Parts: sequence; structure tokens; C-alpha cells
Amino acid sequence: MITVHSPDHVLRAARTELAGGRLVPPFECPERVAFVLDRIAAVGLGAVVTPEAQGLDPVLRVHDAGFVRFLETAWDEWVASGAAGEAIPIIWPARRMSQDRIPRSITGRLGHYALAAETSISQGTWAAARAAADVAVGAADRVLGGERAVFGLCRPPGHHAARDMFGGYCFLNNAAIAAQRLRDRGLSRVAILDVDFHHGNGTQDIFYDRDDVVYLSLHGDPMDAFPYFLGHADEIGVGAGEGFNANFPLPRGTLWPRWSAALAEAIGRARRLGAEVLVISLGVDTFEGDPISFFKLTSDDFLRMGEAIGRAGLPTVFLMEGGYAVAEIGLNAVNVLMGFESV
Amino acid sequence: MITVHSPDHVLRAARTELAGGRLVPPFECPERVAFVLDRIAAVGLGAVVTPEAQGLDPVLRVHDAGFVRFLETAWDEWVASGAAGEAIPIIWPARRMSQDRIPRSITGRLGHYALAAETSISQGTWAAARAAADVAVGAADRVLGGERAVFGLCRPPGHHAARDMFGGYCFLNNAAIAAQRLRDRGLSRVAILDVDFHHGNGTQDIFYDRDDVVYLSLHGDPMDAFPYFLGHADEIGVGAGEGFNANFPLPRGTLWPRWSAALAEAIGRARRLGAEVLVISLGVDTFEGDPISFFKLTSDDFLRMGEAIGRAGLPTVFLMEGGYAVAEIGLNAVNVLMGFESV
Repeated sequence: MITVHSPDHVLRAARTELAGGRLVPPFECPERVAFVLDRIAAVGLGAVVTPEAQGLDPVLRVHDAGFVRFLETAWDEWVASGAAGEAIPIIWPARRMSQDRIPRSITGRLGHYALAAETSISQGTWAAARAAADVAVGAADRVLGGERAVFGLCRPPGHHAARDMFGGYCFLNNAAIAAQRLRDRGLSRVAILDVDFHHGNGTQDIFYDRDDVVYLSLHGDPMDAFPYFLGHADEIGVGAGEGFNANFPLPRGTLWPRWSAALAEAIGRARRLGAEVLVISLGVDTFEGDPISFFKLTSDDFLRMGEAIGRAGLPTVFLMEGGYAVAEIGLNAVNVLMGFESV
Repeated sequence: MITVHSPDHVLRAARTELAGGRLVPPFECPERVAFVLDRIAAVGLGAVVTPEAQGLDPVLRVHDAGFVRFLETAWDEWVASGAAGEAIPIIWPARRMSQDRIPRSITGRLGHYALAAETSISQGTWAAARAAADVAVGAADRVLGGERAVFGLCRPPGHHAARDMFGGYCFLNNAAIAAQRLRDRGLSRVAILDVDFHHGNGTQDIFYDRDDVVYLSLHGDPMDAFPYFLGHADEIGVGAGEGFNANFPLPRGTLWPRWSAALAEAIGRARRLGAEVLVISLGVDTFEGDPISFFKLTSDDFLRMGEAIGRAGLPTVFLMEGGYAVAEIGLNAVNVLMGFESV
């Protein structure tokens, strides 16, 4: 399997994450990719290629133009405002506050375009986010070109990024950008299967009223887990999208038998709805050793996960999302890809 | 003029405020009250008395019961969750996310009930917030008892606290609690005049659909100033409250002539609408030396402010809100009270 990868991911190297009331080194760190690349080389998964620069067109197909402009300039404006730390929102348009007027102040705009405060915008974040979007498009294009499956080693991840909001370590929604690319290049129905521990609120948001991109997610129950405010089972889509969004929230301590039963249901749904291609939001923070999650999958379970996805028999774009047990992220992510290839 | 004051304000002594992407010592600090008390003594303003404990009934007249329970237990739950720092939200119900289901997780509930992240919940915060509400009720009761004016030296402040959200250094909305007390004890129309530099989004929120409590606010234009997402001139109230909310957003560098013209307009509005009593949200962060605001009032201007309020000829409850030029806060706040008494 070919891996698409951009070395520019290292430009996303924030110093601070807000966690437990303190500023700590971010769980989502550049070392994550190094471990995955090492494992790809160790098992001989296949070639690692660099994507072409795509410009902003594929990004603007799923993201708000004002939001994209904000991401592009936020760091420079933040620094110009005299702030000493990285850009972290301090206020947002909460219940019954105005969502229509976008403040002039960079502090106000930061809150307008954020859905979470753990994720700071740092120098280089925009360049890295653009490179990750290029990776996603590059992976989608290779599947359009006839590959059975391609791995887009995106970083920063994307699935929490909504049409006009960043957060949860995500800035541009790589999976949404890839799915839209597949649609724009001729496929009529795409299914995004999100196996990251966290609900992909951003992906759901982007496609919630559409029937051409199905969103299926297995994740920690939002009553107990980030992102808390989206991912319930009764969120089934709206308008034309009704029935094309399916959430499988699962409890603390979930093991492979329960997790894989939900996976089978999700894959069955994708097939019944006529998906022609799968985009996998591949987070491996379902791992038992993950420091910020609460499922209990083993490294061997990731092989079985790949096999189950492979048996769906659809062209597949794998895109890296979360996974914070850094030393095991390569083993676990590549196990999914090897399991897929074994079918 | 009598001052109502609770020594329990010192229980609000957070160690951290999120500002400029760093955790810094809070601008809203216990020393603020010490400077005001010193000035009250120095000028011989009048007696300083301690309020009676009121229980939660006056609080629950304007705040959501679930929110109040949350504030009561948040610190203990946060500590029990293993967090090492003070309680700071990291995610909230942003645009198109669910506002109906309240998460089980303390991290999720913290986001549900917050409108800002600069304000951490610390040990003792709840006790101090309750004491400030007692101060507000105690001041209102003395005006009901016949005093021309009383000063409630509330801390923490209150005007950013909405029916079900904390933030902006505020937890319980002292001015709203006092206004409701005045209504419940027989006055038919109350005007809250908010002269703090920041818009009192919480107070506006609580009374936005009511015609019995008028809200009038002079503040930094929310396009440029906290709270950014409320406080525009076209927010005039809704339903029965239409015409009973008036905002006067003012630009960077505003001096006394422009500020006092807006004050005259606000006071005229209160009188025309038949207010029987004034509640003044007395922030003195309009001062030229304030570290986080951008108006340019001088210490002498605060004397004139008090005179203008006194000339309204209404019974008046002054309640302390913001003001972060700590060394000058006593001079400036007491100048307003002395100006009032000189009329």
C-alpha cells in the first residue's frame, strides 16, 4: 500500500495544550508521524510519496472562506496583538450570544472560529494544516486512479474541524476534503467510516444535510468523552441527509467483541446505502494504552479491524487521525493497513 | 453611605487566568477590595456592615438550578477527576453542537456551563460567589428599607454571569439578583445601569424578554472588546422586553464628554421608562490606567459620574463590578459614591 506523507507536518509543533487547568506539551506531537513512518519501513508496507500542492480549492469545497482566511492569518495577528503565548481562545459565542457578527479583535475572532481551547494555534500551524489537506487529496486521487487502497498520513488530524471551527487538534477536515474530492471527481456516494476513539463532530457537521457522503462513527459516548456535545446515537442527519449519519457511542472499557459488532453494523450500513468508496478516519486512540481515551483494544485487534474493513470490498482511503500512545502508534496504525491488505 | 461587605470574598483567590495564551495571576484579585475599603475609611464614607446569609432563594430567582448545583460541586468534582490545575473549560457547545444534553463528565459540564475560559473555578469560588450575592441582597434590602443609596462591595463581580453560564470573572449575577429582590419586595420597575467598561452580557441575558427590569449599558464596542459576542446597539430586547434593553457601545479612547453624553441618554431612558430604583453595576475599568480596557476616564471624571447618577433622583443600589488598576480602584470607585452624595 502506498503512503502519502508530507514532511511539512513538523511545522505543527505547538508548545502548549490546555489540559487539566494547566498548559502542558501537546499530546498531538510530531513524533507520532515518525513512529508510523518507522513501522511502515520496518514491515515494508510500500512506497512513501509526497503529495502535490493543491492550492485552496479542495479546502474551500468544505470549509467556510472566512474561516480559511482566519486560519491563514491568525498566528501573525495574534503575535501582532502582543500576546506572549500561543493563540488560545478565551471566550466564544455561547448560548444566546451573537453568532452573526464577527469581531474585529483577533481575540474575538479566535473565539468565533474555535470549538475548543485545548488546541492552540502556533507558528507554522497553517502551513502544516494545508500540507495535511494536500496529503488527503493526494491519497484520494490515487484511489481515483485505480489503487485499491492508499494511506494518507495526515497530521495535524482533521475530523473535529467543522465547516467554520477548529479544535480537538484539528484545523482543516482532511477526511471531508478527501470525500468531497472523490465526489467531485465522479463517484456518486462516499462513506466516511470514523474509527477514531473520538466522535468526528466536524465531519458530521459538514455532511449532516447531505445524502451523497455518509458519515459513520464509532466512539466514546459523548456523555463521558470529548467532544461531549455531538456524537449521540439519535443524530441521524437532517433534510436530504436524514438516515445518512450514524453514530455508535460506546462505553468506558469497550473491548473488541462489542467494538467489532458496531463496526460490522457500520460497514453494513455503508454497503446498504450504496457507498462506492470508503474514507477511513483512522485514529488508533481506541488502544488500551492510550493516555486520553477509554477503550481497550489491543494491538492485535487493529489487525482484525483492518481485515474487517478489507472484507467490505470497497476502494479505501485511509487517513490518519488520532492516537496518543506514541510509542505504539506505528504498530497499531500499520496493523490496520496490514490487516486490510491480508484480505 | 453604608457599605455592605463580606470578608468571605477572599475565598475567591484563583491562581490562574488564561490570557494571551498563558496562565497568569488573575487581574480580578482580592487586593481590589482592600483598596476600596481603605478609601472608604480614609474619606469617612460611612459604616461598613456584613450582610445576612440569604440562602439560595434569591439566587435561584434569576439563575438556572442545574447551573447553581454545578457551581456548588464543580471544584470538588474537578479535583476528584485528577486534574492538577484549576478548573478551566476546554470545549463548549459551539455552533450546531448539542445544547440539550448535559454531559456526565465534569470536563463536559464545565464547558456546558461556561461562556469563557479566562476564568478558572478555584477552591472557595462558590463560597465567595454566594457571599457576593448576599452582599447584593443586603444592599438592595437597605434601599428597600429607606436608605437613599447603599454600596454593595461585591466580589467576585457578577454582570457577565448569565442565567446558566459563568465567565468573565463572574459566577452569580449580583446586579440581577439585587434587581429581582427589589421587584420581589414590591417595586414595579427597576433599571440596571451598567457603567463597567465591559458589556454585562449576563445581565442582558437574564432580563432580555422582560419589561420590569430595564438594562442600560455603556461599554467598549464588542467588535473590539470582551465579551465580543453581545452588547451591540441593535440589541433592544425581545417580546415583552422590546425597548427595555439599551446598549451604548463606545470606541477605543473614549473620553468623558462622549461617555457622559451616553450616560445622560441612558439615565433619561431609565426615567422615561418609569424606573423607581437604580441598580448601578459599578465597574471602574473605564479608567485611563486600566490594564485590560480602552476608555480614558480620569479619577475626577468618576466624581462627575456620581453626580450625574445622583441627579437622577432615584434610590440607588451601587454594586461593585470590574476595575483592574488595583492601586486606583479605591479612589475611583469611592469618587463615584462621593459624587453621588454631593448632589
